Amino acid sequence: MKPFMDKDFLLDTPTARHLYHDYCEALPICDYHCHLSPKEIYENAQPTDISALWLSGDHYKWRAMRSCGVDERYCTGDASPREKFQKFAYTLQYAIGNPLYHWAHIELQMYFGIDTPLSAATADDIYDRANGAIAAGDFRPRTLIEKSKVKVLCTTDDPADDLAYHKKIAALPDFDCKVLPTFRPDKALNIQAPDFADYMGTLAAAAGMEIHTVDDVIAALRSRAEYFHSVGCRVSDQAFDVPPYAPAAPEQVQAVFAKALAGAPVTEQEAQIYKTPVLLALGKMYHDLHWTMELHIGAMRNNNSRMFRALGPDTGFDSVDDGRVARPLSRLLDAMDSTDSLPKTILFNLNDKDNTVLATMLGNFQSTEAASKIQYGPAWWFLDTMDGMTAQLKSLGNLGVLGKFVGMETDSRSFTSYGRHAYFRRILCALIGRWVEQGWYANDDAVLKEIVQGISYNNAIAYFDFA
Amino acid sequence: MKPFMDKDFLLDTPTARHLYHDYCEALPICDYHCHLSPKEIYENAQPTDISALWLSGDHYKWRAMRSCGVDERYCTGDASPREKFQKFAYTLQYAIGNPLYHWAHIELQMYFGIDTPLSAATADDIYDRANGAIAAGDFRPRTLIEKSKVKVLCTTDDPADDLAYHKKIAALPDFDCKVLPTFRPDKALNIQAPDFADYMGTLAAAAGMEIHTVDDVIAALRSRAEYFHSVGCRVSDQAFDVPPYAPAAPEQVQAVFAKALAGAPVTEQEAQIYKTPVLLALGKMYHDLHWTMELHIGAMRNNNSRMFRALGPDTGFDSVDDGRVARPLSRLLDAMDSTDSLPKTILFNLNDKDNTVLATMLGNFQSTEAASKIQYGPAWWFLDTMDGMTAQLKSLGNLGVLGKFVGMETDSRSFTSYGRHAYFRRILCALIGRWVEQGWYANDDAVLKEIVQGISYNNAIAYFDFA
Amino acid sequence: MKPFMDKDFLLDTPTARHLYHDYCEALPICDYHCHLSPKEIYENAQPTDISALWLSGDHYKWRAMRSCGVDERYCTGDASPREKFQKFAYTLQYAIGNPLYHWAHIELQMYFGIDTPLSAATADDIYDRANGAIAAGDFRPRTLIEKSKVKVLCTTDDPADDLAYHKKIAALPDFDCKVLPTFRPDKALNIQAPDFADYMGTLAAAAGMEIHTVDDVIAALRSRAEYFHSVGCRVSDQAFDVPPYAPAAPEQVQAVFAKALAGAPVTEQEAQIYKTPVLLALGKMYHDLHWTMELHIGAMRNNNSRMFRALGPDTGFDSVDDGRVARPLSRLLDAMDSTDSLPKTILFNLNDKDNTVLATMLGNFQSTEAASKIQYGPAWWFLDTMDGMTAQLKSLGNLGVLGKFVGMETDSRSFTSYGRHAYFRRILCALIGRWVEQGWYANDDAVLKEIVQGISYNNAIAYFDFA
Repeated sequence: MKPFMDKDFLLDTPTARHLYHDYCEALPICDYHCHLSPKEIYENAQPTDISALWLSGDHYKWRAMRSCGVDERYCTGDASPREKFQKFAYTLQYAIGNPLYHWAHIELQMYFGIDTPLSAATADDIYDRANGAIAAGDFRPRTLIEKSKVKVLCTTDDPADDLAYHKKIAALPDFDCKVLPTFRPDKALNIQAPDFADYMGTLAAAAGMEIHTVDDVIAALRSRAEYFHSVGCRVSDQAFDVPPYAPAAPEQVQAVFAKALAGAPVTEQEAQIYKTPVLLALGKMYHDLHWTMELHIGAMRNNNSRMFRALGPDTGFDSVDDGRVARPLSRLLDAMDSTDSLPKTILFNLNDKDNTVLATMLGNFQSTEAASKIQYGPAWWFLDTMDGMTAQLKSLGNLGVLGKFVGMETDSRSFTSYGRHAYFRRILCALIGRWVEQGWYANDDAVLKEIVQGISYNNAIAYFDFA
Repeated sequence: MKPFMDKDFLLDTPTARHLYHDYCEALPICDYHCHLSPKEIYENAQPTDISALWLSGDHYKWRAMRSCGVDERYCTGDASPREKFQKFAYTLQYAIGNPLYHWAHIELQMYFGIDTPLSAATADDIYDRANGAIAAGDFRPRTLIEKSKVKVLCTTDDPADDLAYHKKIAALPDFDCKVLPTFRPDKALNIQAPDFADYMGTLAAAAGMEIHTVDDVIAALRSRAEYFHSVGCRVSDQAFDVPPYAPAAPEQVQAVFAKALAGAPVTEQEAQIYKTPVLLALGKMYHDLHWTMELHIGAMRNNNSRMFRALGPDTGFDSVDDGRVARPLSRLLDAMDSTDSLPKTILFNLNDKDNTVLATMLGNFQSTEAASKIQYGPAWWFLDTMDGMTAQLKSLGNLGVLGKFVGMETDSRSFTSYGRHAYFRRILCALIGRWVEQGWYANDDAVLKEIVQGISYNNAIAYFDFA
Repeated sequence: MKPFMDKDFLLDTPTARHLYHDYCEALPICDYHCHLSPKEIYENAQPTDISALWLSGDHYKWRAMRSCGVDERYCTGDASPREKFQKFAYTLQYAIGNPLYHWAHIELQMYFGIDTPLSAATADDIYDRANGAIAAGDFRPRTLIEKSKVKVLCTTDDPADDLAYHKKIAALPDFDCKVLPTFRPDKALNIQAPDFADYMGTLAAAAGMEIHTVDDVIAALRSRAEYFHSVGCRVSDQAFDVPPYAPAAPEQVQAVFAKALAGAPVTEQEAQIYKTPVLLALGKMYHDLHWTMELHIGAMRNNNSRMFRALGPDTGFDSVDDGRVARPLSRLLDAMDSTDSLPKTILFNLNDKDNTVLATMLGNFQSTEAASKIQYGPAWWFLDTMDGMTAQLKSLGNLGVLGKFVGMETDSRSFTSYGRHAYFRRILCALIGRWVEQGWYANDDAVLKEIVQGISYNNAIAYFDFA
């Protein structure tokens, strides 16, 4: 039996251990997509206890606890920090096979120096030891970021955001990490949202103009994109249940927009009619700015109306959609490619049934603008598991050019989540290690080093022009 | 080379062998969903030969035989029992990788004491030995059930059924197994079936009332559910190709129903309009009765019209559908949850492409009513294979809380199918054993014992309140 | 560490090595579906260099190169043969996990006697050595075919083709391989293609008749099918993104056809209305001729309009579709079965999410006409990978009768692609070897020999009546 999650965790061959320990472990991190708060990074407050750090905002953990029958009081409610930690430890014990189990132990080892397995029986002891470590040490966000060797970190920001905290962070004299904004225009696209008309007002104000037409929306977004660019933004992000593609005459698009501005309900099909030209215009903007366009496909959000009313979005009530993606995505990317306005693009897939569709889509639109200009994003959210990551790596290996993959990002809201890069790198080195050990790929150390270091860090830096 | 299907079959690590042999092998069975005949259980007849036991009603075996080019005469026709067995053995030889191969050998070992691999060459010898065992022993249904340590067994029953045999079985003085009915109102939902109007008459008669409206249907079903409850029913079951969800005004629902009662054809969309409020009402009934609602999703039945005319349903001509399930299922469960009428629910999935959709759906609707109130049902029918079961366990592990899983049921029509629980437990212990041996989960024997015994038996007993 | 791609490549157990080396390695090849040019086979020209052989027409390789950011000049452009080879070698180095990597090395070993791993660093040396081998040896098509022990080879041909080269090849006195045409009526089905009306003229001319009605189309296709049969054709092939099934009144079908003949646009739904009766008629023809009907399902072609205009079809811009296949395919096959006109059929699946749907579809329509009359085709195109082939074998194993599988074909346009049969046989023997070594299938050598030789060669010869 191998020791529990020791230094060779997941590294099941000599080649895997060599590639990870000698080439990947010490590399810095480029976290090109996350949901950290720039305000919290700037304010840099020391947490009070491990429950504040782990359980105050992590919907992954709440969701697991609810699945164990734990009362909401211990998730988002008023139970004490110790009680919450106990309930989480109880849950974790039964969460065998779940990435939360590995993430928690990686974080206990990495940030708290605790090697004991966490379970209901050890909860109190570990709670005390972790809080002792916090009391005795520095667990402020910027310290955790630097300790984790994060060199670039891209937050997720609304186009109307003033990016004040990004500017303040950039002005810090002694912080060795680029914290860059990401342009996420979802609110400008989600024409079916009840607050869409209000948001148009917010966007107009931010852009210093009035918005009456779809062309105005596009002009306002362009103005904000240019502002974001000036603050260091190089990445955009948009999320769709299914990719929109419904070309229509400009008057038809404008009619849908007018309807929404007036507060009238908009159908799914009308929403697509609006989104299509706006997204095409955004693609062109991104291309002109040499940005990368991220498309997150497949989430079905806020499934529980009762809990949505109680807690709002992003609280653990989302799951995976199963719409058709191949055709609309093909047509959308082709429409951009045909007009020479397809930016570098990363396709993130949330439903693993679509791995083959997505991983073969890439190859339709590659060009000399980058090595693997169209990327297959790392396994994300519900797929951010050992099985999900391995499946994504194999899909890309089978159907694309794995050696040019830009690799992992955390997509996280937590300052202790950087262990997920180590987790990813171990899985990567284990997979490639097995291939080499079985004689399936040449044991050419220089090439292997370039590949695993590329996927761990270098490819992303080159792809996003972050050097 | 490991010996052929010996006592350590599938148990490829010391931990797996320990968990299975020391903790799971001797546990009783809770078979919470099957298609056994209560009449046959009560009548308790000794079979004449192994072909009667194995080949007289098993559409899995017929289907494999037909796939080998075997004539229908040897499946459902008038060939002799020996000839049928020979053709099945011939088929099995080529069915490498098929669960039938394992099931057959497990049953030969478990009930007949035969360890010889079955093939065309050994068919005659094994046929004679098996029949010798039958002649010399007791192969009656209740004996097989008790020998297999089945403590609870839920049959599948129509709401109009009088449950006479369940009552007679309950009154048997010396039978140590609860045989409980399951309420399966499919005929009351399948408004497109040619015999729907007739069935309404049957249901009305059973409920002692007249049925003119959708409200009458619901009232009749409630009356029958209460009767089922009085006979010990605690589980309901419904099967859908895709989950229905099409809310409509009551008059519209009634119009569709009236059309069907008059024998007019009903479209797919109209069928959904009828099914939606009836299913919501059923959910509320189940919730009020503290029942569990099983949803079997994804079968596409009776694909071969020619054979359907010749042999009827459930004869081996079904396959797997590929409709969209995420949205209607989310809306259906949310509609129940929003009105505080969502019962304990088990989602059974027949198309493994939807594993991620289903396993993430659970987490949207959990509550304190049970540990994992919304369950991901075990791999079922076409997925009831080593690969299918392993994939289900991994999906649930990655996306839910595996330690609270209610585990296996046979879904079988055969009295010798209980070896499938052993098969499942071996697969479970093998998977968890590998995780522990690789250092992926703490080697905490007390916790591991609780988990594997929970999934094998205890969780189901607690979840269904069968204690 | 196992040696790089040596004689035991992929064969990870003693049983696997025994089954492959003793039973499968030396067997001839039945390549029952490919895209080789009968003209090139007949003309039998020696290639000038390895780039001519490998890179002049292989869209798999171009696609990988483009994914590495390689300029089109090195793919389909005017770069020198050496430069193209260098860029391909550079690409291959990063294509870790891709079947191209294995295919290239198998071909280097098999046809050029080169064991050195190909990478950017070794490109020049290997280019020179490979060209030396070409200069010193015989690399003409018929020599490569005979050296590869191909006994039957089915090309892919338009119904209007005169099959002149097939006849010439058949008349060659000294060529030990049957080169048979395959009837592929895609152009007669693709009523939405811009050149459909023109093609009707071509078909009419080939059939020596006029085409005014759908019945004329069917009559012309029957006439051509009979001609194909006389030249040795025994297989038909059709490709669909999703299977068509939309039965309509004959007048409606004729109206759609008249519209298309007149050059008017035809909707997706209208196209299905036209395709349905034509395909049903084709099925009946194939059944009457005792042919096999191949259905290739799931490709989404020509996604890149810009490159389509520049390079035309089949140049590396296709990917995988994700439509619903279960219901139309079930209805189509049932419509043929119900009228006793369902031919032997092979279902080829391009989207692995549909493995379970396809592998369970087979069992609905089996009969005594052949062992596994309805076959699940081998993993194809984007799925023609180790993972894809293993998944197909496991799906068929779990859900059908693997021992009766007709096995591999190359689907290739290249004369050096026969190593893919060895690749497939190694994967097959490795999988079955593991099952036997683990005690999951009886170690019965005679049965195992029959199964692996059947799947490698014998089953196809029997199924297609090629003996």
